[in-house]
Amino acid sequence: MQPKLTLVGAGPGDGELITLKGIRALKQADVVLYDDLANASLLDFAPAHALKTYVGKRAGKLSFSQEAINTLIVRLAQEHGHVVRLKGGDPYVFGRGFEEADYARQYGIDCQVVPGVSSCIAVPASQGIPVTSRGVSESFWVITGTTRDGELSDDLRLAVQSKATVVVLMGLNKVGEICAMYCQAGRGHLPMAVIQNGTRADEQSVVGQVWSIPQLVEEHGVGAPAVLVIGDVVSLHPSYLAECLHNVSLVS
Amino acid sequence: MQPKLTLVGAGPGDGELITLKGIRALKQADVVLYDDLANASLLDFAPAHALKTYVGKRAGKLSFSQEAINTLIVRLAQEHGHVVRLKGGDPYVFGRGFEEADYARQYGIDCQVVPGVSSCIAVPASQGIPVTSRGVSESFWVITGTTRDGELSDDLRLAVQSKATVVVLMGLNKVGEICAMYCQAGRGHLPMAVIQNGTRADEQSVVGQVWSIPQLVEEHGVGAPAVLVIGDVVSLHPSYLAECLHNVSLVS
Repeated sequence: MQPKLTLVGAGPGDGELITLKGIRALKQADVVLYDDLANASLLDFAPAHALKTYVGKRAGKLSFSQEAINTLIVRLAQEHGHVVRLKGGDPYVFGRGFEEADYARQYGIDCQVVPGVSSCIAVPASQGIPVTSRGVSESFWVITGTTRDGELSDDLRLAVQSKATVVVLMGLNKVGEICAMYCQAGRGHLPMAVIQNGTRADEQSVVGQVWSIPQLVEEHGVGAPAVLVIGDVVSLHPSYLAECLHNVSLVS
Repeated sequence: MQPKLTLVGAGPGDGELITLKGIRALKQADVVLYDDLANASLLDFAPAHALKTYVGKRAGKLSFSQEAINTLIVRLAQEHGHVVRLKGGDPYVFGRGFEEADYARQYGIDCQVVPGVSSCIAVPASQGIPVTSRGVSESFWVITGTTRDGELSDDLRLAVQSKATVVVLMGLNKVGEICAMYCQAGRGHLPMAVIQNGTRADEQSVVGQVWSIPQLVEEHGVGAPAVLVIGDVVSLHPSYLAECLHNVSLVS
């Protein structure tokens, strides 16, 4: 028996947004360790004999620390063979996937990464928002809303000044702070969207100008997991104009 | 017959990095319009009756202008039904996908987008480089190397100062200019990788510090299509340290 680890990107939520390569890895799994963000139906692709263990967060609390997950991967690979680590989105986008692969390699375990469709691109697309569009945006900047120390990333301070489309993942609980930063920088007029459960049947979103977003999020009860998108490309959303006109009429 | 357009992300090159949803769209296609970057084996998923037309670039020259592709999509959808527009990577990452969907919608054609695995994440991963890693990078910034006017994007000027992992797509012919910008900003020591044909069997890459990259690209004959990655995460590449030591011994 050969211990082995495959990190698999499960995609943003829609169960069909996993790759053929990801499915092939699941079919050859002896163990599947999975998060919340992965669509549960994907577990059906694993063989009946495979051990399936949930290692995500419940109600914001970790079921296992990262250190425990790393140790678990190594032990299960040594005891059972092929461990598939199924992670929401892409394993290398804020997924701590590299740490898991790196740890396993230190124990001589062969590691492969199967990239996935990342929420940072697919969730805006699901609302009709392209992260880039010729003449509108020449770049997009993807930033975590949850840093190690719990503060906003310094990168956001620079991003606020940029012309890039800014995408914030895991940042809903900081939405007020983020919008305030844009307003203080004189950019509160920028188009912004907040999208919960993107690509899933229960997807919901709000669009508007940055200044109006915290209130919209509250009014509509938008919750985590959510993707924030800020930049002119958001004005391409089909209901952006209507939302702005609605605000104008409220103000006047 | 219902005219319909589905933009499908074909992934970065490896034929298995397309999604289940993308395959389903291909199986229901009456017409497939495809680019160079899409893996040719994917066309086999389309039915035998489907019209398959190449609309990419040959030797850097467009076979069809963007306007011609837009018109073609509408005409073929009206005449044949379901047009699948198969694009390398993700349709909304510098793919002009939004323009195609927008144009078709003006003719009342129903449009769907099936996101894909983007080269900007998957190609670095294929070389063992995560675009983010806790304690190393809190964000990544994806920038086109080919703007409408042929100049470097202004966004790059700001990116050079940032702590983000910077990923440049379609930028190989500007690699000298980009590296010079980093060196002028005093950041020529940053780790950088250039990866050609990422995720394909003929993938090749060079890694080193920014200042050394233009020469390495030339020496190793790295060509397009290539992804440039700049930032501390590149130091996680297994041969980065060896490459730097090699340069040190050459210099000393």
